[in-house]
Amino acid sequence: MKALHIIKIGGKLLDNPVQLKELLSTFAQLNVPKILVHGGGKKASSLCQKLGITPQMKAGRRITDEATLEVVTMVYAGLINKQVVSQLQAFQCNAVGCTGADGNLILAKKRAAVPIDYGFAGDIESVNTEQLVQFLEGGITPVFCAITHDGNGQLLNTNADTIATSLAIALSKHYEVNLKFCFEKEGVLADPTNDLSVLTNLSQEEYFLERKKGSISDGMIPKLDNAFSAKKAKVHNVKICGSTGITTSKGTEICL
Amino acid sequence: MKALHIIKIGGKLLDNPVQLKELLSTFAQLNVPKILVHGGGKKASSLCQKLGITPQMKAGRRITDEATLEVVTMVYAGLINKQVVSQLQAFQCNAVGCTGADGNLILAKKRAAVPIDYGFAGDIESVNTEQLVQFLEGGITPVFCAITHDGNGQLLNTNADTIATSLAIALSKHYEVNLKFCFEKEGVLADPTNDLSVLTNLSQEEYFLERKKGSISDGMIPKLDNAFSAKKAKVHNVKICGSTGITTSKGTEICL
Repeated sequence: MKALHIIKIGGKLLDNPVQLKELLSTFAQLNVPKILVHGGGKKASSLCQKLGITPQMKAGRRITDEATLEVVTMVYAGLINKQVVSQLQAFQCNAVGCTGADGNLILAKKRAAVPIDYGFAGDIESVNTEQLVQFLEGGITPVFCAITHDGNGQLLNTNADTIATSLAIALSKHYEVNLKFCFEKEGVLADPTNDLSVLTNLSQEEYFLERKKGSISDGMIPKLDNAFSAKKAKVHNVKICGSTGITTSKGTEICL
Repeated sequence: MKALHIIKIGGKLLDNPVQLKELLSTFAQLNVPKILVHGGGKKASSLCQKLGITPQMKAGRRITDEATLEVVTMVYAGLINKQVVSQLQAFQCNAVGCTGADGNLILAKKRAAVPIDYGFAGDIESVNTEQLVQFLEGGITPVFCAITHDGNGQLLNTNADTIATSLAIALSKHYEVNLKFCFEKEGVLADPTNDLSVLTNLSQEEYFLERKKGSISDGMIPKLDNAFSAKKAKVHNVKICGSTGITTSKGTEICL
């Protein structure tokens, strides 16, 4: 099978224009076919704040009310997505920005309001692999933001790591998928206070142990849960890495 | 040659969710291939106001400074474009939202700063007809907002009527193009105070006369200038109409 690269770029990498440009230049050099998935960075929170929208939290998670959905749609699908697309085009990469609504690429379902009403949060139901393959084989690089839709005209907010994972799993029927979660560190750290303690690989067993010890915590947990679920679902190669890991073997490889 | 419909939808139609939904339902029923181009509505101005961005005007035209460019990118390419795309998908129309950056579809040049510096305003240089034909023949309906790019990573603000006109002219080499500028009236009015005085057709000569008399003024002038330039550049059919004119013969046909 042909190789496909799916690169998810995260929070802090998006907030630094110089780092972001370097990363996009590296990404553009990857052989096609490839897909980029980006998160939101700090812009959405700062725009909410400027507009006087108070973050609604329940059980430690943000609630996407109607006003917040408007803001994330503007920031993720508008500002960040289009800036990324225009920069990739400058690097000769034929990027097309996408939400799940565009080309009906990702269909999601509004999360049930019971026991906790998360508002306009969408759980992925299906990926339109046929349309994606048409794009990829036509030389297009889809650039996804963290917005999906329900097929009835409702946009939904969906975690970008989950989008990357769902795309990787769905496209593994057609490609040998290399899924890379890129963030500001060079990989998973054995010691969170030491940036040089990057693990070369991480098994499920080791992950549980590190989590128990507390050396893996917070934002790394949902990322690694996604990474392991991709690996279990037969995604060829799954890695947590920094921007240098896009084109090199650097980073933490996920093993079962 | 095969027919292609290019429909531009304007300001006030976008501000009324009920009218917009009806219009999109009508548009979705048109036989493929088709393209939708939308303007901005009031959202961008109201967001600028909420964020304390004062509109900068020179010679009666808005200046797109950096803060304003961010707002229009968020509102046009994010909020409005994605709402339109998700609604079209609900009507079984395979819409993909586009700026000029996506697929490098519309390349523009930042307007010269002399004699008036309009900021990040883009004048269209070229349309990527090859990529557009690939989309259209692949069953995709491109939905354009009023954002282009310069090919070097800079997004630019470009008038939506001009985008529709440039697309129509460029695609006339491949299709028999029907270009319709849709707005809140049923067509060009002989008497601006009487909505029933719709002209069936309008020639260049009559246009100059009506403009001299003052019965055609303000926002209609750039729209009609675009319409006549499309007609002169051999676009098959050019019409100014209301939403009912999308599928019927209602509206004002532009003649030379």
